[in-house]
Amino acid sequence: MSITVVGSIAYDAVRTPFGERRRMLGGAATHFALAASFFDTVRPVGPVGGDFATEDLRTLSVRGTITDDVVTVPGGETFFWSGVYGDDLNSRETLATELGVFADFQPRLSPAARACEVLFLANIQPSLQASVLDQCDGPRFTALDSMNLWIETARAELIAVIERVDCVILNDAEIRQLTGRHTLPDAARELLELGPEAVIAKQGEYGAALFTRDGFFSLPAYPLVSVVDPTGAGDTFAGGLVGYVAAARERTVSRELLAGAMAYGTALASFNVQEFGTERLARLSFDEVHARVAELHRFTQFEMPLLKETV
Amino acid sequence: MSITVVGSIAYDAVRTPFGERRRMLGGAATHFALAASFFDTVRPVGPVGGDFATEDLRTLSVRGTITDDVVTVPGGETFFWSGVYGDDLNSRETLATELGVFADFQPRLSPAARACEVLFLANIQPSLQASVLDQCDGPRFTALDSMNLWIETARAELIAVIERVDCVILNDAEIRQLTGRHTLPDAARELLELGPEAVIAKQGEYGAALFTRDGFFSLPAYPLVSVVDPTGAGDTFAGGLVGYVAAARERTVSRELLAGAMAYGTALASFNVQEFGTERLARLSFDEVHARVAELHRFTQFEMPLLKETV
Repeated sequence: MSITVVGSIAYDAVRTPFGERRRMLGGAATHFALAASFFDTVRPVGPVGGDFATEDLRTLSVRGTITDDVVTVPGGETFFWSGVYGDDLNSRETLATELGVFADFQPRLSPAARACEVLFLANIQPSLQASVLDQCDGPRFTALDSMNLWIETARAELIAVIERVDCVILNDAEIRQLTGRHTLPDAARELLELGPEAVIAKQGEYGAALFTRDGFFSLPAYPLVSVVDPTGAGDTFAGGLVGYVAAARERTVSRELLAGAMAYGTALASFNVQEFGTERLARLSFDEVHARVAELHRFTQFEMPLLKETV
Repeated sequence: MSITVVGSIAYDAVRTPFGERRRMLGGAATHFALAASFFDTVRPVGPVGGDFATEDLRTLSVRGTITDDVVTVPGGETFFWSGVYGDDLNSRETLATELGVFADFQPRLSPAARACEVLFLANIQPSLQASVLDQCDGPRFTALDSMNLWIETARAELIAVIERVDCVILNDAEIRQLTGRHTLPDAARELLELGPEAVIAKQGEYGAALFTRDGFFSLPAYPLVSVVDPTGAGDTFAGGLVGYVAAARERTVSRELLAGAMAYGTALASFNVQEFGTERLARLSFDEVHARVAELHRFTQFEMPLLKETV
């Protein structure tokens, strides 16, 4: 059993109030894989250029991740993203996006990647996401991410993919933008009507919310006194979430299962932002993750107040 | 036993994407009182003009609220605020603020108001908040609100009042602005060092977070498909929260007590925003509030995931 993730493997240049990195391993599939690898065998699918360093391939291979579907394009350049974060780390400006080998990326999954039990379509062109779905042999659970660019330029294709997956994982602003609805519950309800069993809204420092046809669940972010680099937090969250679903091996994706999955995703994302890029996840232990999930549990549980009388 | 609240009693003109009101009962003390009155006897302290309508005084008196400390200034005008909300209801623009009788407000509490067990200092000039604290006979629990205006123009006075109260209830952006810290946990920690036992960050549609010296608790907002008018949500939240603390009659303000208080405040605030101004709170029943608290409990509770093995 395994998890296939299709998405970018990249180099990032990032500046935050706490420092900078000129060229570090990044990309959606990378952050996802480093998180999901705690739970099951991960197969990232994506292209890199001839400039991709073997030590970065080693980092990507941590905890049993199989990189057979990471295709090197000789002479090509690895996808490069550069951005700078504002003082509050909630706003960021993209300085450069150089697609490199990602510009001509046409996913061709190996038989092992096609046979995945769980599939995550990271943020890539929606028609490519559809092509990946076509190639897979009916995964038990499928989830996707996307971004404002595709909502604006490929809305119909994106809607068509959403209709085919079990779970949509987007930022809350993207969910509103996609549906044009004022409130998140209204927007999520509209997405659920397209077919998915679950819509999960990523809310950054505020946490995440789960909408199902008959339920709602909300979890705060793990409270951190200092955040060093938010890059990849969303993909790390998705990696923990989807990895947990894979590990649980349940046929039915219940609200209870997804709540636990969100707790692991949240804990993993909190470690991710405490250092630059993949630095913290690369040397994280599962005991550390589990301890933070236990803290999140304590931070959110309360006795139902029994007060029933008024004065 | 009773709750004293000092703050504005106002008329609001509000336009939202869902309609408008040209002149409706509003003000921090009003919204607070309508919520807190479910739990204990409330005494609002504040001035109104000769234009203040008797039917609005009747609305304010709902559920046993005593308006003896609402002082009418003959010939004066009641505080008036006018604003318009953006499409997503998260942004608002103030069109007019006419202080009227509020400009010369010097709180003079009646003996009954001074003898309160619980005191809420709504958003008024910090030196007036200090004067109210001076007048009171040692309430068991004191909390305050404030705003960006006082953070910018009366920071030292505000800090001095914060040092004297048990609980600070502010928007998360205000907590960051006041402390100059990047993250909310860091900012809250700095406020706790000033003396309060608890800092509660209001996070609008994302809910609220509680920071104590040895604990953290977070609660989402009640998910609403449609929001009609956010005006007064924060004061309604504070009213439910402080009212619950008053009703609980406990000497120690524990994390568990405040968690329940936040649940009632959150439920009450959610009703407040479903209609304009005080319209919904004026005819709300406690059973409705309690039912929504039970829903909030379901929306946030989950089994601690037992997953401990990795592949």
